[in-house]
Amino acid sequence: MLTLKEYTAIANRLVAETKLPAQPAGLYEPIRYVLQDGGKRLRPVLTLAAADAFGTSYEAAANQAVGIEMYHNFTLLHDDVMDRADVRRGRPTVHRKWNESTAILSGDAMLTIAGQLITSGVEPTVAMKLNALFNRTAIEVYEGQQYDMDFEQRRDVSVEEYLQMIRLKTSVLLGCAAQLGAIVAGATDEQAQAIYSYGEKLGLAFQLRDDLLDTYGDPATFGKEIGGDIANDKKTWLLITALAEDQSGEIVRQLDTPTADKYDRVRAVYDSLSLPQRCQKLIEEYAAEAIDALITASLPDDAHGFFTRLANDLISRDK
Amino acid sequence: MLTLKEYTAIANRLVAETKLPAQPAGLYEPIRYVLQDGGKRLRPVLTLAAADAFGTSYEAAANQAVGIEMYHNFTLLHDDVMDRADVRRGRPTVHRKWNESTAILSGDAMLTIAGQLITSGVEPTVAMKLNALFNRTAIEVYEGQQYDMDFEQRRDVSVEEYLQMIRLKTSVLLGCAAQLGAIVAGATDEQAQAIYSYGEKLGLAFQLRDDLLDTYGDPATFGKEIGGDIANDKKTWLLITALAEDQSGEIVRQLDTPTADKYDRVRAVYDSLSLPQRCQKLIEEYAAEAIDALITASLPDDAHGFFTRLANDLISRDK
Repeated sequence: MLTLKEYTAIANRLVAETKLPAQPAGLYEPIRYVLQDGGKRLRPVLTLAAADAFGTSYEAAANQAVGIEMYHNFTLLHDDVMDRADVRRGRPTVHRKWNESTAILSGDAMLTIAGQLITSGVEPTVAMKLNALFNRTAIEVYEGQQYDMDFEQRRDVSVEEYLQMIRLKTSVLLGCAAQLGAIVAGATDEQAQAIYSYGEKLGLAFQLRDDLLDTYGDPATFGKEIGGDIANDKKTWLLITALAEDQSGEIVRQLDTPTADKYDRVRAVYDSLSLPQRCQKLIEEYAAEAIDALITASLPDDAHGFFTRLANDLISRDK
Repeated sequence: MLTLKEYTAIANRLVAETKLPAQPAGLYEPIRYVLQDGGKRLRPVLTLAAADAFGTSYEAAANQAVGIEMYHNFTLLHDDVMDRADVRRGRPTVHRKWNESTAILSGDAMLTIAGQLITSGVEPTVAMKLNALFNRTAIEVYEGQQYDMDFEQRRDVSVEEYLQMIRLKTSVLLGCAAQLGAIVAGATDEQAQAIYSYGEKLGLAFQLRDDLLDTYGDPATFGKEIGGDIANDKKTWLLITALAEDQSGEIVRQLDTPTADKYDRVRAVYDSLSLPQRCQKLIEEYAAEAIDALITASLPDDAHGFFTRLANDLISRDK
């Protein structure tokens, strides 16, 4: 096993080396632009590390790693159009830099290219397993995005509904990423299922940590603006729990008629309900479940250590 | 072999029977809506007929037939967003009836579902062949759409460029549809290639006939408004050829400063250059090439007859 830093560097290199045709430039330039975006490369890291962990070289899962990152970036590209987001990681989004048609069509191409990559370089029976997993996961991600959009119109979203939504929108893709590597490496079905569970639970912890940082992060280290979720009435675990528990009526007032100091007032309610502490506790519980899932995966010690450290890193991350 | 009418009825039934989850309704309702749209079902007909023609029952290729129709409808859905089209086949488009986010996300799901269908119900080695063909074709269709959009900004598009664009945007999908059926039926590579060529040439004839009808069709039978291409300066074979050959300057004037009688004036130039006759001649040449390609497919007489009749029907169609 390599280190997280090493796998991340490899994922970055593999993504940078992805070959795309030159023409038509209007289709492929935006894809290159999106892939240069950086980011954590968490999904390809999971694929590469799982391939190593289950006994093949990470190189055998290079196509699958790039494919899952391609898919992830496709979802960001189309989500940005749907959310009318102007900026991602400090750069204009594709529909702002080019136009909406470009963002839609280049995204479509990324989805197809992702499918090509995920099924390439392996035997047909393995390819079909990868393909089935990838397609099933992709459908779940769309369902998650749809629920996320549905929740914007509702105030009665329950915590259970929210957790199911982020499971679909975010977690299953981490589970899928890890399982792709396991399948390429020839892991047993039980092992493949275990590493999927690890990724899935890790994804829940990851998304909840993201929500927490959006309100409580340090702008200097988090890398994106703080308070966006509160400004947009985003139905996060924090807001949903506050809506259910706030006796002061402040949360509902801020949704109905926001004041200039909305962020401070909403955050004060969160604080009064100890939501940051309770959210972090939930994050740690999911991370513990992720680490528990590793037992069934029967990994060598170094691989077990790698995935355990990764979970512990992600739940204490500040960016 | 069945008749065209019978295959069309079967394609309609298979599409209508496609099972989709109930929830989230916001994701799956628009897909059901799009699939009820009707249309010629030409692509699934090609898949079903090719499966029969190469010696298996059309039923063996039912998933692939629905998959290719799902893909085709996905492209229409996203194209309508890009073109800001309000109406398709007499009904509001998805982004008008719902909203743009819905159109984007439901389209994404249709693309993934298409991939699932195309690879299902067959052996892994066959599935991987189908998958490779489908993904390669999908990429070509996006490239075609990109060139089509690029051409909107240009006046120097050549006939060769135009024909290459419609080959990518339209023809390869007809070739793919036929070849999917051939692969499911276990046709040889040479036969599969021949039926692909048939579909590809047929597609060129089909699209040119579509262009011709958009200007010269009878509104009562064509089923959509006549003159849309002229109104939108769409770079069709007619306009591109007229731009190259018109000595009067009328075409350029109508592009620069259109008059109220633009349609009549542009059509008069087309007439003076005998473009409808020359276009129809080209259509018939492509249909003849399609029929020629059938020789290498070595089909039984009834199948050969079916595909020959289909080509002859399509080039004389009025709707």
